[in-house]
Amino acid sequence: MIDKNFLLESGYAATLYERFACGQPIVDYHNHLDPRMIAEDCRFDDITQVWLGGDHYKWRAMRANGVDEHFITGGADSYAKFVKWAETVQYAMRNPLYHWTHLELQRYFGIMEPLNPGSARRIYDRCNALLREDGFSVRGLLERMNVRVLCTTDDPADDLRWHKAIAQDNTFSIKVFPSWRPDKVMAVEGGAEYTGYISRLSEAAGVEIKDFQDLMRALDIRRKYFMSLGCRGADHGFRDFPDRDFTDADLEEIFRKAMRSERVSSDDAETFRSGMIYHLAKMNAEAGWVQQFHIGAIRNNNLRLLRRIGPDAGCDSISDGKVASGLSRILGRLDDEGCLARTILYNLNPKDSETLMSMAYNFNDGSFPGKMQYGAAWWFLDQMDGIRRQIEVLSHGGLLSRFVGMLTDSRSFLSFPRHEYFRRILCNILGDDLEKGLLPEEEFDFIGRMVSDICYANAVKYFNLTLSEDDGL
Amino acid sequence: MIDKNFLLESGYAATLYERFACGQPIVDYHNHLDPRMIAEDCRFDDITQVWLGGDHYKWRAMRANGVDEHFITGGADSYAKFVKWAETVQYAMRNPLYHWTHLELQRYFGIMEPLNPGSARRIYDRCNALLREDGFSVRGLLERMNVRVLCTTDDPADDLRWHKAIAQDNTFSIKVFPSWRPDKVMAVEGGAEYTGYISRLSEAAGVEIKDFQDLMRALDIRRKYFMSLGCRGADHGFRDFPDRDFTDADLEEIFRKAMRSERVSSDDAETFRSGMIYHLAKMNAEAGWVQQFHIGAIRNNNLRLLRRIGPDAGCDSISDGKVASGLSRILGRLDDEGCLARTILYNLNPKDSETLMSMAYNFNDGSFPGKMQYGAAWWFLDQMDGIRRQIEVLSHGGLLSRFVGMLTDSRSFLSFPRHEYFRRILCNILGDDLEKGLLPEEEFDFIGRMVSDICYANAVKYFNLTLSEDDGL
Amino acid sequence: MIDKNFLLESGYAATLYERFACGQPIVDYHNHLDPRMIAEDCRFDDITQVWLGGDHYKWRAMRANGVDEHFITGGADSYAKFVKWAETVQYAMRNPLYHWTHLELQRYFGIMEPLNPGSARRIYDRCNALLREDGFSVRGLLERMNVRVLCTTDDPADDLRWHKAIAQDNTFSIKVFPSWRPDKVMAVEGGAEYTGYISRLSEAAGVEIKDFQDLMRALDIRRKYFMSLGCRGADHGFRDFPDRDFTDADLEEIFRKAMRSERVSSDDAETFRSGMIYHLAKMNAEAGWVQQFHIGAIRNNNLRLLRRIGPDAGCDSISDGKVASGLSRILGRLDDEGCLARTILYNLNPKDSETLMSMAYNFNDGSFPGKMQYGAAWWFLDQMDGIRRQIEVLSHGGLLSRFVGMLTDSRSFLSFPRHEYFRRILCNILGDDLEKGLLPEEEFDFIGRMVSDICYANAVKYFNLTLSEDDGL
Repeated sequence: MIDKNFLLESGYAATLYERFACGQPIVDYHNHLDPRMIAEDCRFDDITQVWLGGDHYKWRAMRANGVDEHFITGGADSYAKFVKWAETVQYAMRNPLYHWTHLELQRYFGIMEPLNPGSARRIYDRCNALLREDGFSVRGLLERMNVRVLCTTDDPADDLRWHKAIAQDNTFSIKVFPSWRPDKVMAVEGGAEYTGYISRLSEAAGVEIKDFQDLMRALDIRRKYFMSLGCRGADHGFRDFPDRDFTDADLEEIFRKAMRSERVSSDDAETFRSGMIYHLAKMNAEAGWVQQFHIGAIRNNNLRLLRRIGPDAGCDSISDGKVASGLSRILGRLDDEGCLARTILYNLNPKDSETLMSMAYNFNDGSFPGKMQYGAAWWFLDQMDGIRRQIEVLSHGGLLSRFVGMLTDSRSFLSFPRHEYFRRILCNILGDDLEKGLLPEEEFDFIGRMVSDICYANAVKYFNLTLSEDDGL
Repeated sequence: MIDKNFLLESGYAATLYERFACGQPIVDYHNHLDPRMIAEDCRFDDITQVWLGGDHYKWRAMRANGVDEHFITGGADSYAKFVKWAETVQYAMRNPLYHWTHLELQRYFGIMEPLNPGSARRIYDRCNALLREDGFSVRGLLERMNVRVLCTTDDPADDLRWHKAIAQDNTFSIKVFPSWRPDKVMAVEGGAEYTGYISRLSEAAGVEIKDFQDLMRALDIRRKYFMSLGCRGADHGFRDFPDRDFTDADLEEIFRKAMRSERVSSDDAETFRSGMIYHLAKMNAEAGWVQQFHIGAIRNNNLRLLRRIGPDAGCDSISDGKVASGLSRILGRLDDEGCLARTILYNLNPKDSETLMSMAYNFNDGSFPGKMQYGAAWWFLDQMDGIRRQIEVLSHGGLLSRFVGMLTDSRSFLSFPRHEYFRRILCNILGDDLEKGLLPEEEFDFIGRMVSDICYANAVKYFNLTLSEDDGL
Repeated sequence: MIDKNFLLESGYAATLYERFACGQPIVDYHNHLDPRMIAEDCRFDDITQVWLGGDHYKWRAMRANGVDEHFITGGADSYAKFVKWAETVQYAMRNPLYHWTHLELQRYFGIMEPLNPGSARRIYDRCNALLREDGFSVRGLLERMNVRVLCTTDDPADDLRWHKAIAQDNTFSIKVFPSWRPDKVMAVEGGAEYTGYISRLSEAAGVEIKDFQDLMRALDIRRKYFMSLGCRGADHGFRDFPDRDFTDADLEEIFRKAMRSERVSSDDAETFRSGMIYHLAKMNAEAGWVQQFHIGAIRNNNLRLLRRIGPDAGCDSISDGKVASGLSRILGRLDDEGCLARTILYNLNPKDSETLMSMAYNFNDGSFPGKMQYGAAWWFLDQMDGIRRQIEVLSHGGLLSRFVGMLTDSRSFLSFPRHEYFRRILCNILGDDLEKGLLPEEEFDFIGRMVSDICYANAVKYFNLTLSEDDGL
């Protein structure tokens, strides 16, 4: 398993991967890495910390395998937790965690044997020994993977101090940019959590926020601050995509209601979201940013674990609302008003794949190749079948050649082999087409460039990341 | 067709099937078999009776092939009906009926040739001759297939007399348990049908049911009676999953309205269902039962045939409502209150596959490996592609290794080769992974155990069915 | 690429295609060809006109590739537009346009090399030279493809003068029938556009339309006129399938409101559509027509291009409403009243595939083999994966053997190789089944007939098109 030709089932696939994919640097244009850890170049106590400390994918699998919370997010010691994970890994065969786990063991630690109860002690010790070595700090791990650019996910109220520190550190060449994620601004139904958030935003912007206009002014100040630190994109998360009529007077009224700590109905909240995303999207266009819409996560389903552990505990799943009408309305209006930013639409529910793909392409305007993107397989879909399906849906409904490629969306510094995983699947699909005569061999060079574009160059151009002449663009 | 390696496309697949799957006994934990026929060890007049007497899958195919109802559920004679079926079978190539038909002819009757108009007479006579032999009674057919446990589907008002008779019959070693299916209790909008049903339930429980509290008391008495006869699970069918706020006062009011034969609005009915499933689910947890939610059948679409033949006439299909929000609400509440039973979620609409898969896994709590299950391919999805897709969705979103495997959901004593069909597909998928290096050969033994667990042992543990030391658990 | 065995991956597949598919004539029972161009046997100025003049699929791809509207629907010259298309074609690898483009170059023009910037000039000149030859007029192109029947798409208010002219032209043997597409009658919320349309309809029918009864009378007159010109079918397009209670009094009231130019609410419009489709469907049954329901297109999302270019500009996409309940209601009622015409259900959203497939088969009544059809892959789904998936869904849920097969749905006289594309995929699927032992070799002849039925004979029977003894039916 995971030899040289892992996932590459034809000669063409192997050649494409070897010549056009594997050497490409990584532009990880959306993730949840902690910029502090990069700024401080943190080191890890042990493999449990780096692997299991914050990885809700693994927690979820362990719970499903009958492991008690004590060994997951509880007080069990580091090795005891690792052993429970090693047991679970076997039971996770065919789950993406199985491949990810072994890719990570190979690529970072050079460990070639399967993780299971028999190998757990050996692997635990070996990883820990390596983690104490130079080159296994946060920066070392990133450099090992040939990462060139990282875009983290940040709140408008965040002071971005760590981004500033990284930018000023000449000893580190990987670019780390913030991304603008104003989801909390939309959550007007949140009661005290919302007003608390607005006061933090107020402080960050140096603007007293009493009404909706103040809010927009504060956001605009913060937007400019994000721009000054190299922010390239915005990110917006939706459970179900909002689809309401609104006026600015509605938004003002609803916002004031929230600020007076009055109850905001779910109808009002939906109207507010409909309006807010419109205004935020206009801001994105003005900033020249790429905007990303992540649609379809229903979060914190497990109230017990939400109270005990908080959000991001492995208890989020896939929602199933309608998406077409709301998107048509907002994207249509933005395009019509000349303020539609480059946009990536991601779906969590595979039922929405073709809907989002086809919706995006209604709004290409010839201004930029691949302006409107159908985004990479995300979260529960970031696995072999999901990746294949995203590539197929994009291919059959649009221009695969213009795709900006993969991202990790991860909180872990060990998850960069997911780019390799994606690249192998991509090359395998194109290689298979060549093998079957579905693509002409005489266009092999073009196909090769398509691979390298998708792995690297398209994202560089799309996110306006040209950093030096070496990028060869 | 259907030789030794039917559906097994690699050496690994063939070995896995041979060594770990084909010898496993069958635990058919959800079906619609008639316990009377088992208790009385019925014999069949002819192959038409056993094959076409109640099989709405075949009726549906025959109608689609232009066959008049006279030859389907009408007065045509046995052989005339069989010939119409034999003609239809050819036209059903690629439909699961085609493989099922020939698997059944082979496995029960040793008939290796395709059924078509040319072979119809020969096959009809041969089957009928065999059906007159010993070993082709109901019990004979079950024993021939190595069935160890059957869980039927029963109404709370049912007296379970046949289950009692079977349990007391020492000459028969296959375990036959009732399952609790209180769907009729939820159908509060049914008018006279509902009040009629409540009075039968009242009688069965020996409780006068005047209000909602009485209803719950009656159900509790019946629940205990079902438990006394070995019931292991409950089963709940939904067209669209309900998603309403409710109080017990609401339920009381709506129930009384129904009992007074007043019209119950569809809003009220939805509220009642939301509340009722909560209360029934608590009951399931208390009983230590597995609860199964079958979501997405829209029934009796054809009013003409409903009047003429009744329900289950082959005129049901796939509904397309939302499921995530209602499930999140009910499962979240049950988990939070510590009364979430082991649960299997089945979808009829493939658009819901990933939604249900991911929703289920929000609620694993470490108490039991595979506590929350994404259920086997059901009804219209119980075919080659549907089975594959269920295995893929489960694999990529959860732990395939903990899957409780296949069931027939059938009314026919001849449908047990569907277990073989499932097992072959399962082994083929895992064999293909080994072949392609997606799973490591050095874990072959673990993979083998995974196969036998899915075919048999997981269901035994999950349904608490350990019957003797021979189960080797 | 695109050699003799294009898309045919087994010997069986190649034999099936060779013997049973490739020689079949084409019955293109649903398209948007312009009957005037057939009547006048038009010739084309150049390849840009015939290929890019009205093809919104290509426009959409060009916009996505960053091409300015000037070169798409704007004033650029013919060759400049062609070059932009040639550049885009390379970037469209894996999109159906890539295969269609090269199939069209091969089948019509004998050009075997890939279209790309290097070959653009050569191919442009060669195509244009051929387009000046005899045999490359509209009729020549149709005859070249072995087309036997065309059913266009026509409005009830259309005078069908070109259909009449074609019917009277003895020099042309391809049958061209109108189809009845009364979508504009349903669009009651359209304001002045609606009343304008109704007055055109009024004129065409010679009936003053003041109320709903007049409307129905006018439609009935037009229906008979369509019948007199050989119309075989009706076609109805829906964004989301309507699902409302209605009375004729409701319809009357809403219609009068529209005729008085009062605002019709979206609720009213939905009610009107629910009622109108019922009445139109009864009309279809009375006429003995096949009725086709095309469900799930959300049109004109891009308001800017709608204003600039009009509808059908490449800015339509996939909607995601519910379909089961509305269809169950209308089909159930029609069946119950004995006025359900032969019906084909097409979905644009793949999430609805199984829902529509299973819904259709609730209403087979034995009167005609394959009376209720799950329709061919349509629009965004008319590509390799979509075609495969339609065949799989139909196979596993129904009777593939009774399928009426492919159609172009096209506005272009060059799109007939899509029939070949479909046929190759069909033969490949069946060949693969034979190869794997999923279908028995001893039924090869039956399978061959199944292929030729799906390619030709089923549609002939279904649309009542038997034209001469040569059809061999």
